[in-house]
Amino acid sequence: MSEARTEISSLGEFGLIDHLTRENETHQASTILSVGDDAAVIDQFGKQTVITTDMLVEGVHFDLMYMPLKHLGYKAVAVNLSDLCAMMATPTHITLSIAISNRFSVEALDEFYSGVYAACDKYHVDLIGGDTTTSQKGFVISITAIGEVTPDQFITRSGAQNNDLICVSGDLGAAYMGLQLLEREKKLFLENPNIQPNLQQKDYIVERILKPEPRLDVVEWLRENSIVPTSMIDISDGLSSELMHLCKQSKTGGVVFDDKLPIHAQTKEMAEEFDLNPSTCALNGGEDYELLFTVKQADYEKLADNQFITIIGYITEEEGVYIQSPTGQKHQLLAQGWNALNG
Amino acid sequence: MSEARTEISSLGEFGLIDHLTRENETHQASTILSVGDDAAVIDQFGKQTVITTDMLVEGVHFDLMYMPLKHLGYKAVAVNLSDLCAMMATPTHITLSIAISNRFSVEALDEFYSGVYAACDKYHVDLIGGDTTTSQKGFVISITAIGEVTPDQFITRSGAQNNDLICVSGDLGAAYMGLQLLEREKKLFLENPNIQPNLQQKDYIVERILKPEPRLDVVEWLRENSIVPTSMIDISDGLSSELMHLCKQSKTGGVVFDDKLPIHAQTKEMAEEFDLNPSTCALNGGEDYELLFTVKQADYEKLADNQFITIIGYITEEEGVYIQSPTGQKHQLLAQGWNALNG
Repeated sequence: MSEARTEISSLGEFGLIDHLTRENETHQASTILSVGDDAAVIDQFGKQTVITTDMLVEGVHFDLMYMPLKHLGYKAVAVNLSDLCAMMATPTHITLSIAISNRFSVEALDEFYSGVYAACDKYHVDLIGGDTTTSQKGFVISITAIGEVTPDQFITRSGAQNNDLICVSGDLGAAYMGLQLLEREKKLFLENPNIQPNLQQKDYIVERILKPEPRLDVVEWLRENSIVPTSMIDISDGLSSELMHLCKQSKTGGVVFDDKLPIHAQTKEMAEEFDLNPSTCALNGGEDYELLFTVKQADYEKLADNQFITIIGYITEEEGVYIQSPTGQKHQLLAQGWNALNG
Repeated sequence: MSEARTEISSLGEFGLIDHLTRENETHQASTILSVGDDAAVIDQFGKQTVITTDMLVEGVHFDLMYMPLKHLGYKAVAVNLSDLCAMMATPTHITLSIAISNRFSVEALDEFYSGVYAACDKYHVDLIGGDTTTSQKGFVISITAIGEVTPDQFITRSGAQNNDLICVSGDLGAAYMGLQLLEREKKLFLENPNIQPNLQQKDYIVERILKPEPRLDVVEWLRENSIVPTSMIDISDGLSSELMHLCKQSKTGGVVFDDKLPIHAQTKEMAEEFDLNPSTCALNGGEDYELLFTVKQADYEKLADNQFITIIGYITEEEGVYIQSPTGQKHQLLAQGWNALNG
């Protein structure tokens, strides 16, 4: 091994992935889409299978102090299915591997699995395999999700074109505000265990962080209405970051209107309580698992009356992603640092 | 959550898996084989895909003190491909997720990935996706491997029948003796860091633990010679344990001849040095990743001259797995406890 030492954090998450996969070669003619999108696509004898995988680590991706194990099981499945939705694929199967320390009881694992099965039931997905092993510390979950798609009907991140409309499903920033609330209540509880968490009239934002849903309903609605997005990604790291990925991979730029960002009333209230700008929460808050996609302007009419899809901006030829205020001022959105590996 | 607390160790590994998957239902007509074999099989529009997944945890499955990162990357892929081989499937794709702490440098990760790519190159497998995340402690690797098989030509663990011949590929116990040797040298090194490890004339057993190969060559040879095993499993936990699985799932028993067990000269020498019975090492030593399979007696002639497959016994109607000595004495093999989760 070389004597040089390059810190992983110096590359950033996406730089690291680019670095590690730079020499990745394909041997199989069946590999249609490899590393670099929400999921991979392989040809299965003329039909196409979509595959994605995610790893969740205790203390990094979840905190068991406020994340009930059943919700964790549900969410672990949901976030993988969300990646399939972002390809416009229909989820069919998952595998699940876990590493657990002996601080977990069988009853605790049953709770976790009940959440896994609840998500599988809701989305008609089969759990077909896995691995159960020991960890020295903490709980690690790895899920691979498999879906199917009509040949060449999958949607990548790289097809957005000049003047396309930028759309998002649902609303943004709620999961982030839910997380802030749970962190606050956890802190209060640790200071005084007699205090019960105050989550009144915060049910929506708490549910958004604890029980996200993959937007398979949106995928099906788009299909039923013959709307073929030009590009698509799911919002796990925040609108700003995902739009930058989408524009970079499409070699375009984009403009988003500040006053078009869909934000739930509870998200706004909570943001005010925390003295945060709701738009900032919507732009940078992660874990909403909504879909961000672009469509041709010709699809405008089909989308206009929709209750769960919002047109928030448009794609530009010139690169760079901007937020535009109601008064017309534009602000460039910049990449956030990836500090997870310093943690 | 219930107040009861059942220790995971009280169920054992296989009891735990049975428990957690007892309520697993299938929703997809395409699910041909689910949890409980070396891999799952799903129907892809009339063709069949085989899928398996494994998780490797530092300190549980590997020790970076004597496992070079390049070998670890290679082995992580190899053990998954071995599961596909055990279904008589041809590996095509993998996904790879890792969790790493910041004690690893980019150069260290490069070493690991060079091993992953070496295995992918050798077995013509494409790395098509993955996830790279942070761990609070240690290194966790999760791989999902995908393969293809001619429809209904996959081999399960449950097809062995009375009087079938029991066969193994390669030789047994070498990886276990390699591990004992490395553990001994590690201990000596920790006591006196000036001592260099003495691995002379132990290259075979060291290679067996550090760089196992999936027996795709055996799968291909069986196919070329039109030998269709009645059942098959790969030997990750030791011959004894795997034969018990195979017989249990086939609802049969089996007899293995002590003097037929294929054991390498270096394995025997090392066993003597450690004052161990070589047969015991062959029966109980894990991580050889050889194939254990059964064939009809009619296939005897086809197998007899083979250099890398040994017929070691036969399947019986009566349940229970026995080892028979050259003098004709039979000894029942019993399940070993699973204590990994107490560790």
